[in-house]
Amino acid sequence: MNLKDIEILKDQYLKEMMRIMNFSEDEFNSIKATTILKAYKKGTVLLKEGQFSQNTYYIIKGCLISYHIIDGEEKVTSFYTEKETFSPSCIVTKKPIEHYVECIEDCLVSIGTPESEKLMLEKFPRFEKLCRIYSEELLVKQKTAFDHFKIASPEQRYLDFVHKRPDLLQRVPQYHIASYLGLTPQSLSRIRKRLLKSEVNHHKIAI
Amino acid sequence: MNLKDIEILKDQYLKEMMRIMNFSEDEFNSIKATTILKAYKKGTVLLKEGQFSQNTYYIIKGCLISYHIIDGEEKVTSFYTEKETFSPSCIVTKKPIEHYVECIEDCLVSIGTPESEKLMLEKFPRFEKLCRIYSEELLVKQKTAFDHFKIASPEQRYLDFVHKRPDLLQRVPQYHIASYLGLTPQSLSRIRKRLLKSEVNHHKIAI
Repeated sequence: MNLKDIEILKDQYLKEMMRIMNFSEDEFNSIKATTILKAYKKGTVLLKEGQFSQNTYYIIKGCLISYHIIDGEEKVTSFYTEKETFSPSCIVTKKPIEHYVECIEDCLVSIGTPESEKLMLEKFPRFEKLCRIYSEELLVKQKTAFDHFKIASPEQRYLDFVHKRPDLLQRVPQYHIASYLGLTPQSLSRIRKRLLKSEVNHHKIAI
Repeated sequence: MNLKDIEILKDQYLKEMMRIMNFSEDEFNSIKATTILKAYKKGTVLLKEGQFSQNTYYIIKGCLISYHIIDGEEKVTSFYTEKETFSPSCIVTKKPIEHYVECIEDCLVSIGTPESEKLMLEKFPRFEKLCRIYSEELLVKQKTAFDHFKIASPEQRYLDFVHKRPDLLQRVPQYHIASYLGLTPQSLSRIRKRLLKSEVNHHKIAI
């Protein structure tokens, strides 16, 4: 990402925020002034297990993953892509995080600090409502994802993933997807082959 | 639960709310006036798959479970006990729910309606902040639980459960706990036996 790309993306991001949040001019200018953008190269580890961060990361471009390392093995728990926010648990728990966060693509992120959040909420109290509604929506989305993960068979988990995040199939290595779904790469490979065969037999589009 | 028990619990609940939320007298009287309490007998199904509810359920006393029925089998996804709230996903998604919600003990719940919530938020705008912070805390708690579920072995999942919800071990049938942990009752039984043996060998307290 060169500087020109970053400027274009920043502009698009601010316009998108303006559209979603229906900002007044005053609000927009405050947002613009407090926005901190950072570009990270693919492979950058933003946070490590045991570290502490008070910042939130809104993804303008790129993909982050979070993973735990258990007995030397990476266990992927989340992908964060465009228009999603990664908020470290330590903001609430005040304890160091238990996982890693890494850029698996070149990334451009907007960083929220506790100071910028406090400032915005004090200056524009209506943001409280927007943030509350956003959090409540995210809670339902996250709870539904958790429930589906629990009750689904490995095959169904993969089909849910294909249905909900088709973009990630092209962007993320298969071993990360397998780990995210709680499968070994071999199991995922077998599931994909089985589905592919059944899809071909039914003259449908291959997965 | 007889009427006297309900009155005592209602009183305790309002005092607890008063303490947590630091209500003014005006706020407290509004809360008291809009509080709808309902008592349900053990075995009552509050919501069924395909139904729609706009109400939230704050548990004053008792235990709710939510479960999906898949191929005739109950798959437990959540337990809700004292001081926890069950909010149906349809409040956000506007789609019917995909699961069942049942009282597995006699329950006393405080019911929040969209009207009562709107009224309170309009009358006391500071509640926006309280609700936002509550939702953000819940998001982190829920995300951490999801991550741990994904990365843990079945044995570790059970140990996490014992550690975090020791109360439920005494209150909930073992087959519900097995289902909640994504295990068959037989697997859970084997895990418990193994742990018990290892605990006895180490002269620790049995699980």
